[in-house]
Parts: sequence; structure tokens; C-alpha cells
Amino acid sequence: MRLSREFTRRFVFAVLSVMFLPAPAALAQSHPLPSWNDGSVKKSITDFVQRVTTQGGPDFVPPAERIAVFDNDGTLWCEQPIYFQAAFALDRVKAMAAQHPEWKQQQPFKAFLSGDKKALAEQGEKALLTLVAAAHSGMSTDEFAKSVADWLAIAKHPRFNRPYNELIYQPMVELLAYLRTNGFKTFIVSGGGVEFMRVWAERAYGIPPEQVVGSTGVTKYQLDATGRASLLKTAKVQFIDDGPGKPAGINMMIGRRPIFAFGNSDGDHQMLQWTVAGSGARFAGIVHHTDAAREYAYDRPSKIGQLDKAWEEAKTRGWTVVDMKRDWKRVFGFEP
Amino acid sequence: MRLSREFTRRFVFAVLSVMFLPAPAALAQSHPLPSWNDGSVKKSITDFVQRVTTQGGPDFVPPAERIAVFDNDGTLWCEQPIYFQAAFALDRVKAMAAQHPEWKQQQPFKAFLSGDKKALAEQGEKALLTLVAAAHSGMSTDEFAKSVADWLAIAKHPRFNRPYNELIYQPMVELLAYLRTNGFKTFIVSGGGVEFMRVWAERAYGIPPEQVVGSTGVTKYQLDATGRASLLKTAKVQFIDDGPGKPAGINMMIGRRPIFAFGNSDGDHQMLQWTVAGSGARFAGIVHHTDAAREYAYDRPSKIGQLDKAWEEAKTRGWTVVDMKRDWKRVFGFEP
Repeated sequence: MRLSREFTRRFVFAVLSVMFLPAPAALAQSHPLPSWNDGSVKKSITDFVQRVTTQGGPDFVPPAERIAVFDNDGTLWCEQPIYFQAAFALDRVKAMAAQHPEWKQQQPFKAFLSGDKKALAEQGEKALLTLVAAAHSGMSTDEFAKSVADWLAIAKHPRFNRPYNELIYQPMVELLAYLRTNGFKTFIVSGGGVEFMRVWAERAYGIPPEQVVGSTGVTKYQLDATGRASLLKTAKVQFIDDGPGKPAGINMMIGRRPIFAFGNSDGDHQMLQWTVAGSGARFAGIVHHTDAAREYAYDRPSKIGQLDKAWEEAKTRGWTVVDMKRDWKRVFGFEP
Repeated sequence: MRLSREFTRRFVFAVLSVMFLPAPAALAQSHPLPSWNDGSVKKSITDFVQRVTTQGGPDFVPPAERIAVFDNDGTLWCEQPIYFQAAFALDRVKAMAAQHPEWKQQQPFKAFLSGDKKALAEQGEKALLTLVAAAHSGMSTDEFAKSVADWLAIAKHPRFNRPYNELIYQPMVELLAYLRTNGFKTFIVSGGGVEFMRVWAERAYGIPPEQVVGSTGVTKYQLDATGRASLLKTAKVQFIDDGPGKPAGINMMIGRRPIFAFGNSDGDHQMLQWTVAGSGARFAGIVHHTDAAREYAYDRPSKIGQLDKAWEEAKTRGWTVVDMKRDWKRVFGFEP
């Protein structure tokens, strides 16, 4: 057990129904970003894209260098009331219990499976870590991907009573498509487990597995009796892609500095700093959750998605801050 | 100092002149693979590509899943007489000596800088590790990339007396382009340091930084007095992308199982096994160095590029083995 507290908090994340993911809504090509209200925020995005794509202009950036990175939880989809990956992990432990009769006598599984909230709470955060690790290890990478897909096909969000795949932000799906239309390569850079996101990110956002950067665990290479290879997921943490880990993850997995970055919390602060530290035109954006009616309202303090230091720097540096209530015509593809 | 012996051996790798890299030679589009001799090897490649790209055929693979991975050293370019990244590291230590007067009194730098081969040999492999680590740490990622580019602009191969960038295999450059023309996404998966390869791989092979998987070191996020972010390279190893690390690296950084893989040594064995373990049509290829006249001849035993276990499995499973002397019309873009 080497899962850190921060890891679990982040590992435990975002998501979607892979079996029934709808295609991203068709965009009105003549008017990009139809779900964004007109105003300075929308204009800051379209102005930036125009600057870096104007051939011969002072801020032109060749297509190969148009790297755009997006946090996932709270930036591309809802992260409340708990990271969706945590919801997956807890459901997964219940589903695995039949194959683990020993859990009936073993904490924290015993308390969790019997619904003994008091006993579970007494075991503290370490208990949660143990549950999450159990859901994410001891199986092959193929088996894990299937378990995520199976869960997404049936799980529903407690408030909206919809599959998690529908809780992606329609304006951000449009923004991703708009950037790609303008020659950008779009990446997810999330604290969530990379293998969890890759199962559904392509259908949800049009972002293929190889463009998803996230936290990783150590895998163990193994051959079966017939010489067939597989990778076993272990409980050992390899890399935490959060906070200062985000620039490190971008450097490790992308190898180019982005020119465009979007986040929503202090976990994205360093990614935004790292993006704007490059030369030439740069865009840093923050989604501010201001809409309790259509989604949630939170910034600081918040257990999930705390926005404090990044918020202060955004004000100082003039980064784009999206006021969800003001700037988004709609939040989801459905009407809540 | 946490560089393992294996890490150094691998870390110390492949390369090319970033400043003066020639564009990949123009291909005769009507006849793909012009530098390959006709025969069963060339046919095994073109047959495979035809099978997976024939819409409606039994082996059709959608473009998004056409992932092709290539080892670098000994597969895409020459790796003899030493990994080019080792040559870089040693040259780099010499270049850094002026900023490190303390090295004059400090081993193994003292022995290396004064050319005392006997004293250096007495300090064993650990001495080499120390030198390599010094060349790869204590600077920002931007500074490191510049040091690689600077070196590539002037360094020459001891036998061919050509810039390292010219020591890429012309038939493999053609193969990469041929695959991309057929909808494949081409990746490098090398034991070499990922930041070393990314400096030149795009110009040499048409493979962008985000499609290079390799060994990584831990970086440290830092802000200067003005709040500008950078990443400091430390001497701590993060991930070794070699042997069983290659499937793990592919899983971590690409997130899809390749359908096509090429290597040349036992360090690629598990990557080839992992590739063919998937369902549907799969291609595994090995470059066998049989040409002492035009390049080098080696397999087992060999300090660099040992080909033993992978060779045995290739025979058993019927993987494609390229006999460099027989199958390649030419080796390099120049005539040796």
C-alpha cells in the first residue's frame, strides 16, 4: 500500500458511460462555440485562436506546436459531489466482494461492505485508500478497462440521475472541437488515473488514449502458460499528475510546452504557470463554478476543486476566468 | 545518484543533428519502400499493411487503432560502437567542466577529464554512471534540450565521420512514411532518455515529441524570482523503458496496444510479445545486423544490442526478421 492521501483524492475522479456515450453534439460551424454567451471571455478565446492561426501574423504558431491541455474533473465534466473515479472505486469493491470472501472479516472491507459508516469513519482516510487501491489493482490492464466500461454502462449521478457520460460540459466539448478545427492537438492532463479516463475520453471528447496524461500505477509484465503477455496492475503508485506534477507529466508524456491550458482548481495552478512561461502568445483559462442551479457553486474552501491560489494569480496576470453562470448558455447537453 | 546500471546502459543512446537534419529523403510514392529488396521480408510488410487497411476485409483495423511502435537504437539508426547518447554524455561532461572547477579534484571527473583511462577503469561502472548523470541533471529541461541540439550540430560518428543524424536507416525512414501514408500513427519506444530523442526525432523520422516514449528522470518544478516556471532535471530515475518496461511504457504513455512493432534486440523482446498478444492481425519485426561492410554485424553475445531470446522466439513464432545485408538495398542515405 503506497497510495498517498493526495493520490487518492485525485486518483479518484471524473468519468462516463463508455457503452452508451453519445457523439459530441454537432456544432454550428458557422458560429463556433454556440453554447458560450457573447462577452469578454468568449472573445478572449476566439481572439487568441485567431492570433496564433493567422499566417504571417506576429503571433503565428505552426500547427505542430498548437498543443492545448485541459484538466478533466471540474474543467471538462462535473466533479461534484465526489470525484467520479471514487464512485467507481467504491462500486467496484462491492462488485469484487463475491470473489473475496476474506473481506468479510477484514477491515476496512468489512465495515464498508456491511454499511457500517461509523466503523469506516473511525478507520480514517487510510481505509478509503485501501478500498481505492483494491479497486485499481490485482487485475490485468484489459480487465481493469472492462470493469470501468461495465460500471459506466450502469452508474448514474446521484443528483442528475443521468449516466456520468452526460455530465460533460457542452461548452467545453465545443471548445475542444473548435481548437482541433483550428489545427490544435488537444490533450487531457488530469490528476485522475490515466487508465480510467482513456476508456471513455475518446467518445466523450474526441481525445484518443495517447493524448490523455494522468496519474499512473506500476504495472508488472507477465506471461501465461501459453506465452501470452499481459500487464498486471499493482497497488504501487508510479506518478501523480497533480499540482507541480502536471508540468512534469506534460514534460514526460507530451514533451512540448502547451500554448493553451484550461483548469479549474489549485491542482491546475502549476500547469497554467508552466504554459504561460513559454515565449509567444499563451492562453490560460479557469472554469469558475458559480452556478448552483444548473451545476454547483464552489471555489474556496472546497474539499474538491479548491480554487484559491490559482484564482489570485489569474486576477494578477489577467488570465481568462469563465463564470459558468454568466458565460455558458447551457452547461450540459441535456436540460437539468 | 540513483542511476542503475541497466538504466545507464540504455539511457545512453541513439541520436542526431537537430540543427542540420536533412529532410527525410523523398519517397517514390508509386513504389513504396524503394530501399528494400524484393523478397519475403518486404512482402510480409506490404501484405500486412494491405490486410489491415482493406475495408470490409477480415483483418481490417480502423485508422485510430493502427498504432506502430519502433525501438530506436539499432532499429531506426546505428547504435555502434557505443550508444550515441553515451557519446553525448561524455562530450557534455567535458563541455561542462569549465563551470565545475571542483571536478578537477573530484573522481571520477578528475580521471575522465585528464584522460587517465587506467584510473577511470579502476573506478568501474559506477564512474560511468556518475558522468552520465552529471550530463543529464542539474539543469532545466530547456537547457538540456539546447545542449543536445548543440552537440548534434558538431558531433561526428567515429567510423563514418558523418553527423549522427545521417546514421538513420533509409529503409526504416521509408517504412515509417509508408505506414503513416496508410493511416498508422508511428511511435518510438526506446530505452533511451525521452528528452534526448525528442530534440531530433521529428526532423529525422517525422515523429513528433508526443509520440516518443522513453526512459524518464524525475523533474522538479520551480519558479524564479519573477514567478516564471521551469523544470529542473534531477539525477533521480523515474522510469526505465526497456525490456519488460517497454510494454509498461506503451501502456502508460500510449494507452493502446500496438498492432505493429519493430525492434532489434532482447530489450525489445517483451514489446514484441505484448504486441502480438492482442487479438486480430499483428506484425512483429526484428532488424538483424548482418552487414559488417555497410554497417555492423552482431547478435549474440553483444554488449550493445544483444539479440538472443527474441531471436529464438522470432524463429518459433514466425516473426519477420530483416537480414540487413540481404533485405536492404541501401543502409543509409549516403553511400559509405
